[in-house]
Amino acid sequence: MPTALDALKSRLFDVNALNAAMAMLDWDQQTYMPKGGASARAEHSSLLARMAHEAFVSEETQRALEEAAKEAEPGTDEAAIVRNTQRNMKLRTKFPAELVARKSKLSAEGHEAWVTARANNDFQTFAPILAELFEITKEEANLLGYENHIYDALIDMYEEGATHAQCQAIFDEIRGPIVQLVKDIKESPNQPDDSFLYGEWPNDKQREFTEWLLKQIGFDLDRGRQDTAPHPFCTGWSVGDIRLTTRFKDYLPSALFGTLHEAGHGMYEQGSPMAWDRTPLAGGVSLGVHESQSRLWENIVGRSEAFITWMLPTLGSYFPALADTDPKTMYCATNKVEPSFIRVEADEVTYNLHVMVRFEVECAVLEGKLAVKDMPAYWNSKYEEYLGITPRTDSEGCLQDVHWSMGSIGYFPTYTMGNLLSYQFWNCLEKDLGDTDALIARGEFRPILEWLIQKIYRHGAKYPPQELVPMVTGKPMGAADYLARLSQKYRSVYGI
Amino acid sequence: MPTALDALKSRLFDVNALNAAMAMLDWDQQTYMPKGGASARAEHSSLLARMAHEAFVSEETQRALEEAAKEAEPGTDEAAIVRNTQRNMKLRTKFPAELVARKSKLSAEGHEAWVTARANNDFQTFAPILAELFEITKEEANLLGYENHIYDALIDMYEEGATHAQCQAIFDEIRGPIVQLVKDIKESPNQPDDSFLYGEWPNDKQREFTEWLLKQIGFDLDRGRQDTAPHPFCTGWSVGDIRLTTRFKDYLPSALFGTLHEAGHGMYEQGSPMAWDRTPLAGGVSLGVHESQSRLWENIVGRSEAFITWMLPTLGSYFPALADTDPKTMYCATNKVEPSFIRVEADEVTYNLHVMVRFEVECAVLEGKLAVKDMPAYWNSKYEEYLGITPRTDSEGCLQDVHWSMGSIGYFPTYTMGNLLSYQFWNCLEKDLGDTDALIARGEFRPILEWLIQKIYRHGAKYPPQELVPMVTGKPMGAADYLARLSQKYRSVYGI
Repeated sequence: MPTALDALKSRLFDVNALNAAMAMLDWDQQTYMPKGGASARAEHSSLLARMAHEAFVSEETQRALEEAAKEAEPGTDEAAIVRNTQRNMKLRTKFPAELVARKSKLSAEGHEAWVTARANNDFQTFAPILAELFEITKEEANLLGYENHIYDALIDMYEEGATHAQCQAIFDEIRGPIVQLVKDIKESPNQPDDSFLYGEWPNDKQREFTEWLLKQIGFDLDRGRQDTAPHPFCTGWSVGDIRLTTRFKDYLPSALFGTLHEAGHGMYEQGSPMAWDRTPLAGGVSLGVHESQSRLWENIVGRSEAFITWMLPTLGSYFPALADTDPKTMYCATNKVEPSFIRVEADEVTYNLHVMVRFEVECAVLEGKLAVKDMPAYWNSKYEEYLGITPRTDSEGCLQDVHWSMGSIGYFPTYTMGNLLSYQFWNCLEKDLGDTDALIARGEFRPILEWLIQKIYRHGAKYPPQELVPMVTGKPMGAADYLARLSQKYRSVYGI
Repeated sequence: MPTALDALKSRLFDVNALNAAMAMLDWDQQTYMPKGGASARAEHSSLLARMAHEAFVSEETQRALEEAAKEAEPGTDEAAIVRNTQRNMKLRTKFPAELVARKSKLSAEGHEAWVTARANNDFQTFAPILAELFEITKEEANLLGYENHIYDALIDMYEEGATHAQCQAIFDEIRGPIVQLVKDIKESPNQPDDSFLYGEWPNDKQREFTEWLLKQIGFDLDRGRQDTAPHPFCTGWSVGDIRLTTRFKDYLPSALFGTLHEAGHGMYEQGSPMAWDRTPLAGGVSLGVHESQSRLWENIVGRSEAFITWMLPTLGSYFPALADTDPKTMYCATNKVEPSFIRVEADEVTYNLHVMVRFEVECAVLEGKLAVKDMPAYWNSKYEEYLGITPRTDSEGCLQDVHWSMGSIGYFPTYTMGNLLSYQFWNCLEKDLGDTDALIARGEFRPILEWLIQKIYRHGAKYPPQELVPMVTGKPMGAADYLARLSQKYRSVYGI
């Protein structure tokens, strides 16, 4: 006899199918869609979003959820599905279908408008639609409700339990040491030259080499693939089908570390138990934990001296200009720290300063202290303050990222949380595995991936981040591991 | 105030969004999906198909349709939407859910059994399930109802208004002349050598050249794209986003004419008025008319001496081995006629004989004159009779095509209708445009495409084929144009 849980799962499978379809429509939009497809795509996505919303918040699903909640034994996967669905139901039932459809349509249009605005360095044509997106976000926050700060309502959607005060505390803790570290680095006499990393690197070689990298570190290409997109991302619709994107530029590390970054997201997704496929337990638990995995593979593994030394001979065989490069030179060049304009191309040290700027800009607009049309000047002044540089154009300033254009506002601090967590997890991994540099130097990534699967990936979205992080590391998320190792690494690279 | 028609359109937009999503899932499955994605893809597609069916046959849609029918002015686009939806509703509501589920299950099992049977050349393990599929098809035909022949109910689903008698008449008319033409060709002393078309043609060159071809003939790459798939097809989800696929093999014409074929389908789809996007009026009207366009561009344009002569210099610049090929040699080689076993690889002359065999086999089984288990012998005797060759195995005989195994029985004659119509349309086009060979020889395809847009494409699915064909050609579909021009062309190629 079908149980209440079966009934709930069956409803959730319908919602999952609609979400999967939307994810694929979005993947296609960013990878292969011809421009003529944009207007119908916006309509299709909006209608599917409305249907997914309606199916999820429907009376049948709500009734099934109530019944299943009585039936599920505490501690079981079923109880986790119920908990997860209850949280999601709370978030979703606060938004009327009309608002969901309006936002979806506006986001699709916003994306197209942003592409044009960035290409033309023309913020003001994008400003009205961005202002609308901020207004719709405020509507959402007000519907969700919050106690202390409007940001609390937003960031909780992406990182369960996170608050404006917590973000503020993190930035307050890291701001001083990082600004100081950047300053010390700037004054060091040992400035690496990375000009040799710029060149005409054939796209097909970049494709082949990054696919080789994926295989080496353990991203399963039978259960995923890599394509290219202007703004790399990772998505998926099944534990067996995870899609990465990267991009090929004249600055070679863009593809190398972009691939490692998205592969970190992808391996996390691939690490969920297949039995959870299409349920709410499959996939990562939060953006912060997700980002910890992309940053771990990109920075802690990928930008280590051991990894660079291991990778270099093969890299040289794909790109003969690098065949004679000394590993130490390569290591220092790929860890060059220099204040720059584009977050996704920022080095590991300055990265969080970019996040901090965006957090402060978002808060200023949400608090009503800043009009969207005045954003560029405000944005630029923050860059001057924290990074000591001023964007020359809005395209390399506040137009740089895709997220706002798609209505994603209020989650940037999860990037910084990811950076913190990557080192917090890594310190535990190192304690268990011992000499990780030796493993990496031999290209033995399996023990590292296996540790992450056992400790983190196989739990999917079962435990909320505030449970998962102490379960793995014995303590709540903090900045100490991150600050210590960052300082240690970069003071060594720069001999300071 | 929203009208009943608005209400109907709104319901149909929902169904359209679900169908668009399914089309994209299917496109991805055949182009890019990693193998690990298969099981979730099957579930997602099946759930979306159920949702689309439920949304279409829902009480709300049926009520909106009834109201809209009262409101729509005869002759308007709205009336055509109503008519189209009424027909579709009739087809969709005749089958009880139990039968739909039973067929879906049987088709999935059938497909699996067919894959194994074909791989093992073992028809008899597939026969019982194929017999069941024929039985379920008979059930469907009985539910749909028919006056004269069970086939009437089936083919009407694919080609509105087509009947068994009509198919029979067509095949009776073309059987003799084509069998005679094949015989005469076989006895001709002038047998073209096409061995030079086999070679190692680099995939990237095949991609670049076929994309160049697409641009020349007028397929709009801003509103579509071309990828590769094992079995080429054309699909789409918007007038602004039509997807073609082709394949790159060691037999170069496979890509060239495959691309032209799918582009014919694609340009027909792109030619619908943008104002009809996402409505039932956008896109082609029937399988037969659709096939007329793919065959027109593939065979009448693409395999003409003028086209080959025009294309050859550019082809030679992409494939140096062909740089010195004589146009006449190329023309004859790409029009080589030779009886063979596999329909999808057949030349233009023998192609309809393959279709005829399948039609006769289907009818014999549906009429109860042939038991499924005895099909191979019957099939082989027909190949002997019409093509003068006997399949050596059932895998290259009655097991060759996927369609039956998935329960698609009763639409093969639309391929032949497409061939007939392609020449019937072309004769009218030629009457209006004059010397089409001169246009083609100069690479001026725009007048040809424009004529097709004005006469056929811009009407989308507004007029049923029995109205459209006389509207364009002044007479109902017939075989005369086809037979005359086929004979003329191939007697000239073979000097007979």
